[in-house]
Amino acid sequence: MKTNSSNLLIVCLHNLQLIIRSTYGTCLVLDGILQCSTRDEFSYQEMISFLPLNSHKSPKNVLIVGGGDGGVAREVAKHPLVEEVHQVEIDERVIELSKKYFPSMACGFQSPKLKLTIGDGFAYMKEHENEFDVIITDSSDPVGPAQSLFQESYYKLLKNALRPDGIVCSQGGSYWLNCKHVKNTLQSCKKHFSTVAYAHTNVPSYPCGHIGFVIGCLEPHRDLKSPIKEFSSTELENMKLKYYTSNVHSAAFALPRWVEASFY
Amino acid sequence: MKTNSSNLLIVCLHNLQLIIRSTYGTCLVLDGILQCSTRDEFSYQEMISFLPLNSHKSPKNVLIVGGGDGGVAREVAKHPLVEEVHQVEIDERVIELSKKYFPSMACGFQSPKLKLTIGDGFAYMKEHENEFDVIITDSSDPVGPAQSLFQESYYKLLKNALRPDGIVCSQGGSYWLNCKHVKNTLQSCKKHFSTVAYAHTNVPSYPCGHIGFVIGCLEPHRDLKSPIKEFSSTELENMKLKYYTSNVHSAAFALPRWVEASFY
Repeated sequence: MKTNSSNLLIVCLHNLQLIIRSTYGTCLVLDGILQCSTRDEFSYQEMISFLPLNSHKSPKNVLIVGGGDGGVAREVAKHPLVEEVHQVEIDERVIELSKKYFPSMACGFQSPKLKLTIGDGFAYMKEHENEFDVIITDSSDPVGPAQSLFQESYYKLLKNALRPDGIVCSQGGSYWLNCKHVKNTLQSCKKHFSTVAYAHTNVPSYPCGHIGFVIGCLEPHRDLKSPIKEFSSTELENMKLKYYTSNVHSAAFALPRWVEASFY
Repeated sequence: MKTNSSNLLIVCLHNLQLIIRSTYGTCLVLDGILQCSTRDEFSYQEMISFLPLNSHKSPKNVLIVGGGDGGVAREVAKHPLVEEVHQVEIDERVIELSKKYFPSMACGFQSPKLKLTIGDGFAYMKEHENEFDVIITDSSDPVGPAQSLFQESYYKLLKNALRPDGIVCSQGGSYWLNCKHVKNTLQSCKKHFSTVAYAHTNVPSYPCGHIGFVIGCLEPHRDLKSPIKEFSSTELENMKLKYYTSNVHSAAFALPRWVEASFY
């Protein structure tokens, strides 16, 4: 189905919807929830990628679970220390939609570092134990099938798929929308990871204009807010980063007093 | 005019509108622009108050320009070093509306530290030179009459009303909405202040869920991101702060790479 007006185009494909509008650029909507817009997607994609990558001393082998638009692959592949990017996405249609309507994100699929698998992240990780330095879960919100990606059993799988000094980073929701849910995800993570933290960023097109990340590290007492790797101005320029800097990395861990009291 | 439905109440009074809805608590709308909501107003009010107050070694005498809802007065009066809070608000109807519908903000008007004047901020400052340690401008967006509060002539007045080591902090808009406008305000401020910086916070009910503050300091080379006064846990608790902490203060000055490149 296709609907067209002066500044609005909607393409519907089964449970997928693609909306193009003028204010927020081109927006991808899945299962009725806005996943990303071309106007501000860089904030989300850069932060979910470089927060964990720059908290690891040698992030050679990276796994992305989900991320069918290609934006996270685009960012992860930029990192000079990353050698292999493995991505497992369950829904091939999202990838095809992105290639057609979001070339600036789907370019992530063109990286020679990328090995893409269409399949279930749970099954994939069971077959790949002790393999990855960093695992990034770029999922939709915990409604429907994505719910399992926020639970303890998923964090157990993540831990098993990691190498001993591994780090995970997942889309963790916003405390403005549902503080209790974010806290539950942090607790699921804490059951399997020694150091756990929540970082956040602004994404105007998301509800509340805000989104966060749950980060887990197998090493105890790690100060995740201080990046191990600090990009030079030349590196930031070469990587065409729009949002992420070392200052932004550290600032992302500062939480409002009421949230800090609730989480930690 | 009054309209009522299950979760929506609208009260219209000339160019003022008051909207009550369930999702964002009670919202004050002036001239068609949402000014604050009871669900998240604390983020804005605490940040616009404590960013400048805690950047000054002795903020005894404070002026608030605007701020008719009373929320900034509520926060400023809490500060243990503040002795006098002067407030000049041009529109008495906003104060009356706030007293009626927003008692949790209007309580700011009950402080024994407060001296409220109904009048024009420009005229008031011309009559009060070299008097204030901190001046906070809590204005609406630069549309219509508020436009003059973002211009160079206003920053000249602010400078003259300040004592030699004074600091000003104004609502400065969001770079997500209009980066060029924020830059222009920073440049207006720079013409009269030696140290100028932009800090920001999340306010979900605002457009883009984001708002910023332009801070000017007469002292050169000041590191505004490091607060001079750090509240202890007991002070934070006694002052019932929900958002502001020293970590949040410092983090508020970290800007996305594209914004930093544009501003500084």
